[in-house]
Amino acid sequence: MTIPSAPEVKKKDETERESESAEQVVTPWEVSAKDGEKIDYYKLIVKFGCQRLDASLIDRVQRLTSRPPHVFLRRGVFFAHRDLTEILDAYERGDKFYLYTGRGPSSEALHLGHLIPFMFTKYLQEAFKVPLVIQLTDDEKCMWKGLTVAESKRLARENAKDIIACGFDVTKTYIFSNFDYMCGAFYQNMVQVGNYVTLNQAMSTFGFSGTDHVGKLSFPAVQAAPSFPSSFPHLFSGMDNLRCLIPCAIDQDPYFRMTRDVAPKLGYSKPALIESSFFPALQGNNKKMSASDPNSAIYVTDTAEDIKNKINKYAYSGGQKSLKEQEELGADLEKDVSVKYLSFFLEDDSELEHIRKEYGKGKMQTRDVKNRLTEVLTEMVERHRRDRAAVTDEMVDAFMAVRPLPSMFE
Amino acid sequence: MTIPSAPEVKKKDETERESESAEQVVTPWEVSAKDGEKIDYYKLIVKFGCQRLDASLIDRVQRLTSRPPHVFLRRGVFFAHRDLTEILDAYERGDKFYLYTGRGPSSEALHLGHLIPFMFTKYLQEAFKVPLVIQLTDDEKCMWKGLTVAESKRLARENAKDIIACGFDVTKTYIFSNFDYMCGAFYQNMVQVGNYVTLNQAMSTFGFSGTDHVGKLSFPAVQAAPSFPSSFPHLFSGMDNLRCLIPCAIDQDPYFRMTRDVAPKLGYSKPALIESSFFPALQGNNKKMSASDPNSAIYVTDTAEDIKNKINKYAYSGGQKSLKEQEELGADLEKDVSVKYLSFFLEDDSELEHIRKEYGKGKMQTRDVKNRLTEVLTEMVERHRRDRAAVTDEMVDAFMAVRPLPSMFE
Repeated sequence: MTIPSAPEVKKKDETERESESAEQVVTPWEVSAKDGEKIDYYKLIVKFGCQRLDASLIDRVQRLTSRPPHVFLRRGVFFAHRDLTEILDAYERGDKFYLYTGRGPSSEALHLGHLIPFMFTKYLQEAFKVPLVIQLTDDEKCMWKGLTVAESKRLARENAKDIIACGFDVTKTYIFSNFDYMCGAFYQNMVQVGNYVTLNQAMSTFGFSGTDHVGKLSFPAVQAAPSFPSSFPHLFSGMDNLRCLIPCAIDQDPYFRMTRDVAPKLGYSKPALIESSFFPALQGNNKKMSASDPNSAIYVTDTAEDIKNKINKYAYSGGQKSLKEQEELGADLEKDVSVKYLSFFLEDDSELEHIRKEYGKGKMQTRDVKNRLTEVLTEMVERHRRDRAAVTDEMVDAFMAVRPLPSMFE
Repeated sequence: MTIPSAPEVKKKDETERESESAEQVVTPWEVSAKDGEKIDYYKLIVKFGCQRLDASLIDRVQRLTSRPPHVFLRRGVFFAHRDLTEILDAYERGDKFYLYTGRGPSSEALHLGHLIPFMFTKYLQEAFKVPLVIQLTDDEKCMWKGLTVAESKRLARENAKDIIACGFDVTKTYIFSNFDYMCGAFYQNMVQVGNYVTLNQAMSTFGFSGTDHVGKLSFPAVQAAPSFPSSFPHLFSGMDNLRCLIPCAIDQDPYFRMTRDVAPKLGYSKPALIESSFFPALQGNNKKMSASDPNSAIYVTDTAEDIKNKINKYAYSGGQKSLKEQEELGADLEKDVSVKYLSFFLEDDSELEHIRKEYGKGKMQTRDVKNRLTEVLTEMVERHRRDRAAVTDEMVDAFMAVRPLPSMFE
């Protein structure tokens, strides 16, 4: 993905920015582009007021961590940030930070788009040697999807297994469900955040209306609280100045714009963010995968046969209608979902470049690209399934235990 | 206080009732009558849709508990209820219940009005031999009064000492601060309550507006949660059908109308209520005591001299302007604050009746009534102060420890 330089953005109260425009909608609950168009990430950066994650910053990450940058960084999947420069400045001076990410456990099976923040967060944890908290928002799913408390909690544990299967280090990682972990220290931060956001602001930032239930109004503060180290006395006691870095998809930005506005009023640092684009649906680049349409996504529970069929049947092709036309005109790489998917998951830069080149000038057919994608995803999904099968209930208990993380900065 | 029979009230969704009228305002945040008039408790019963606590119900309480009814029952201080009949029916069949009351710790020193629900709750606990949970809403005071978390928690502990000084049984009583106790089980009930109240309903029931902070919107669910036994797994594990009886002042009724509407949707019993009138300000019957005007109330920290001066200077007199007029016309007992105060705290029915009679027909002067009130209140406040001085930090810790109550039904 090519992202032009972000222009200077007029400073204003971050929550004051609108989260909707006539052209495209990106909120925590809705992501849609104009018909037939892609999400314009450049416009999102300007609208949300975040910064472009440019090559010099990626080089700096490489230098500070002494390892190649993750493919999601090299390929611009994580493309925007807030205050990452400050986090790296401090890291260079020897100041650590902690990572915070999360998941709303609305379904049993995760799709590939769900894995992206966790794959990337695992890389960050290993590269920077820092602790990580993962919030499972079972309460959110009870509020928005009408799930029972018991069902939300069950899904949270099931999803925790998929997350653990991504390879997190149990000595550095605390996974928690809001329904289970909620405690005084966390609630104190929730209440304090709620004291600085008016109902009008919440309605404008998150699009709440009078017919929404009041529980929803309290949720932004629940998602904000883990940005402050004091929400975790068992981890960060006496470390109130520890900074927080949040890897997430850019649709979560409204929550953290609000959090960043409030943080200094509570005496905390603003959390920094590193934000990804969306993993598109098989049907095209302009939609996010949806858990409600099983054919829009590849699931970690899909068989090799499922994966092959879904790619062959649904993956939107940028190739031409006939072999002859394809040989003459080549494929439209920008619209081709298989090429897009390969850009996320085919790690070999030279092979990806070869495919783009050959397919783009018509020397490769859609079928060939789909076959290669099928191989890559089948291997990836089968590896994930093996890893997930090895995650026991005892391991889930271990990750979710309220405990210190003794080797969290090693 | 004389309360006429409550008429049949048209059944409707309890939260639909308006909490304001053109004539008088009674909400959790404001209590005021029409200028120069008393709060009309009869109208409140009709408007809120609760029932009158009549003589036959008081007789039944006496019979079931084998002890004289509390002076606050005999004198109509607690004058309204919801489902008390059902609670007594069940009690007669051998089913116990638990008591829930609370306090918003907004000030260091309590006034006499603050003590009333606790004095009465102590009587209920002893008479029925049931457990009691007391919620200290330090979070509310952080939200409404802008107190820091630390200051709210400090005031909660200070207020706990006054509450403990009322003589509660530590083997049957759990006192908790929301900021300290908040836990998964409690939060799960909070979220579920929040799922059944729309923003529009909350704004109408509690008078919230767009400029209020979102934290406030979540508070009604926080006050609702202790009505459900599952909010206290350390006390009521496996007792999800245990009913709850809430002694409170009638200004808290909107919270519990909402709670009662939601309860069946969550599979819980509706909490029952027993509701008091307000203890009036020294200046007159139409105002509630206010912590912000020290001369409107007698505080438990007032010296004997303070009490004497406040009563002599500020207690509104229903007596006539001159000795002659008083002897001719007698005092207006309905407007006389000293008589009102004596009706709360002078336990001897015959002495109270004597004072009312003599003062009413002009054979007693305001000075005599004020002197007697000074004696009664001084003795009461000094006893409270002695009892409070005996409450140690260890005792507060013991009442506030998350623990089972082994003898809670004995």
